[in-house]
Amino acid sequence: MATAGKVIKCKAAVAWAPNQPLCIEEIEVAPPKAQEIRVKIVASGICRSDDHAINGTLSNVKFPVILGHEGAGIVESVGEGVQHFKPGDKVIPLWLPQCGTCRACLNPNNNLCKQYGIGKPIGVQADGTSRFTCKGKAIYNFAYTSTFSEYTVVNEIAVAKIHSDAPLEKVCLIGCGFGTGYGSALNIAKVEKGSTCAVFGLGGIGLSVVIGCKEAGAAKIIGVDTNSDKFNKAKKLGATDCINPNDYQKPVHEVLTEMTDGGLDYCFECIGNTNVMTSALMSTDFGSGTLTVVGVAPPTAKLVFDPMLIVTGRSVKGGLFGGWKSRESIPKLVTESMASTFELDELITHKLPLEKINEGFDLLRKGKSIRTVLLL
Amino acid sequence: MATAGKVIKCKAAVAWAPNQPLCIEEIEVAPPKAQEIRVKIVASGICRSDDHAINGTLSNVKFPVILGHEGAGIVESVGEGVQHFKPGDKVIPLWLPQCGTCRACLNPNNNLCKQYGIGKPIGVQADGTSRFTCKGKAIYNFAYTSTFSEYTVVNEIAVAKIHSDAPLEKVCLIGCGFGTGYGSALNIAKVEKGSTCAVFGLGGIGLSVVIGCKEAGAAKIIGVDTNSDKFNKAKKLGATDCINPNDYQKPVHEVLTEMTDGGLDYCFECIGNTNVMTSALMSTDFGSGTLTVVGVAPPTAKLVFDPMLIVTGRSVKGGLFGGWKSRESIPKLVTESMASTFELDELITHKLPLEKINEGFDLLRKGKSIRTVLLL
Repeated sequence: MATAGKVIKCKAAVAWAPNQPLCIEEIEVAPPKAQEIRVKIVASGICRSDDHAINGTLSNVKFPVILGHEGAGIVESVGEGVQHFKPGDKVIPLWLPQCGTCRACLNPNNNLCKQYGIGKPIGVQADGTSRFTCKGKAIYNFAYTSTFSEYTVVNEIAVAKIHSDAPLEKVCLIGCGFGTGYGSALNIAKVEKGSTCAVFGLGGIGLSVVIGCKEAGAAKIIGVDTNSDKFNKAKKLGATDCINPNDYQKPVHEVLTEMTDGGLDYCFECIGNTNVMTSALMSTDFGSGTLTVVGVAPPTAKLVFDPMLIVTGRSVKGGLFGGWKSRESIPKLVTESMASTFELDELITHKLPLEKINEGFDLLRKGKSIRTVLLL
Repeated sequence: MATAGKVIKCKAAVAWAPNQPLCIEEIEVAPPKAQEIRVKIVASGICRSDDHAINGTLSNVKFPVILGHEGAGIVESVGEGVQHFKPGDKVIPLWLPQCGTCRACLNPNNNLCKQYGIGKPIGVQADGTSRFTCKGKAIYNFAYTSTFSEYTVVNEIAVAKIHSDAPLEKVCLIGCGFGTGYGSALNIAKVEKGSTCAVFGLGGIGLSVVIGCKEAGAAKIIGVDTNSDKFNKAKKLGATDCINPNDYQKPVHEVLTEMTDGGLDYCFECIGNTNVMTSALMSTDFGSGTLTVVGVAPPTAKLVFDPMLIVTGRSVKGGLFGGWKSRESIPKLVTESMASTFELDELITHKLPLEKINEGFDLLRKGKSIRTVLLL
């Protein structure tokens, strides 16, 4: 099935250096090598992790780089040895691959593939080189995906084939933000029917957690955010109550404990603020409450709390990409979204062409968007 | 079934003030009031929490007090309304009761009974008074049990009736130390068959965790202690390897990570040292490892760690009394011990009469005993 490949010239958003606006450039995308797939990206969400890459919060980024890791597209060509993909297949590139054979992939409780995961060489393909060049310079990739480009090259263990009718401009969200939040409720916290939940931070991830809690049958889902403008959307998606900590004199964990007769079964921190994590832990039920940490804190931040909170029966959990094993789960999630098991439309507040990518980041930084999807 | 009660005069070890040796005194034990049971204590283990009560690590202790919470005995008389106990029944008093009707008792994931648990009035019965007097002074009880006395009075929701043939001088350990460690492996961590485990601290609790890991079918159980003299016993009880952190130049989490091809499935901290807790968390497998905190840290200690350890898939768990719902579980555990499902003998290194209780505490403080059982 390998197709003879040529270099493709196309547009991409290049981050030449940290803390700079992205530049729309003409780049060259080399053909896929063995076990690689070249994908025409159709849509890509702008996720906070992309902004963390720009501002230096993420350490595993090399510049110049093409960011973007929440995309969906169509296979353009495949390299030698690729068996399960052909040109025309709809796919979602995976920032968290699934090789299927390593110790983590064989462990039902672990989705962090060891063959290709965090800790491997940064910004390059498995052979140590990049497929991107621009103005004669090699450009690094990001998170094995680099979806802010009309074409990208990914390894076959880092792509999921999805339903041929899938609406790419929506289901791209499943590849990161939605999958992370939704899975954090279902796979990591394992929210139970009739339970009480609180979600701290009502951005795209937090709202996806709300959707997951609702899907799990939670009896009470309390949204917590310092921006009350977010409450209408949260309630539309499943929150039964919303509170703004700034509206109270007492600490929010006391407010929540009173609201729930002693504390919540499940709390979710979707901000990346270690003080909020501790507060969320203190909001859980004495004896059995669970905090699930979804937000990524700055590199030097430490989580600090009284160990008695744990010794007396609370838990702290977490996991990347909502605990989903990516290649096997994403196709199912796409199909479920097409059957309206859950709703992605409400999470997409803006659609922009690639050229307006910096505008999309501005909306994110100013808290004016839930998700901006770039249409390439 | 209520028996007309008289005041009983008997011996008890009284702690008149913190940080003092205990005094063997003649005390008076009033008859049980409604819903109460007077128990003749036959045996009582000396647990580190008793020492924590003496030295002020535990905050919920009022002096003068009769300590002891790991006892076993025989019902002497019952108060009005007590239906399920009669004189002659063998019982284990419960420092963690189970009322059976509160929100926690009705929650299968929570064993911290809300009717009678932590946070209630300290050192007295449900009516606010004590049944103990000595030299004309009321003496407080401890943990609702006060088993360092020939007779004690407990509420019916804080007693488990056990098998009539149970060897009280052994099964008393089930009421605290053994139950806590064993249950931490089985109920809290939920150790899986074939998994890898490390137990930090090889005292009575740690060894009970080892027994639990073995019972769960763990493939590797690594004992970790700075006192290598404890290794023989640990291996006898199920440890497959033992390491002394002082024997290595590198941090113990690096040693353990290398020993287990990337990290352990389950680590247990059985010391109460927050630095060891962090080290144990760092020893767990990237993506799925679980730290279970069993040790109780000093009141002002804080657990501090990089939240990325959690966000990337590790968990921190804990729970009192190994997650067992006390009244329903202890009778089963006693019966299992009689069927030799697990071995208690190896945990009991010393037996002493009540009069030598201070000698028993010395053995504990010097690390020379695993468990000393007082025979009353």
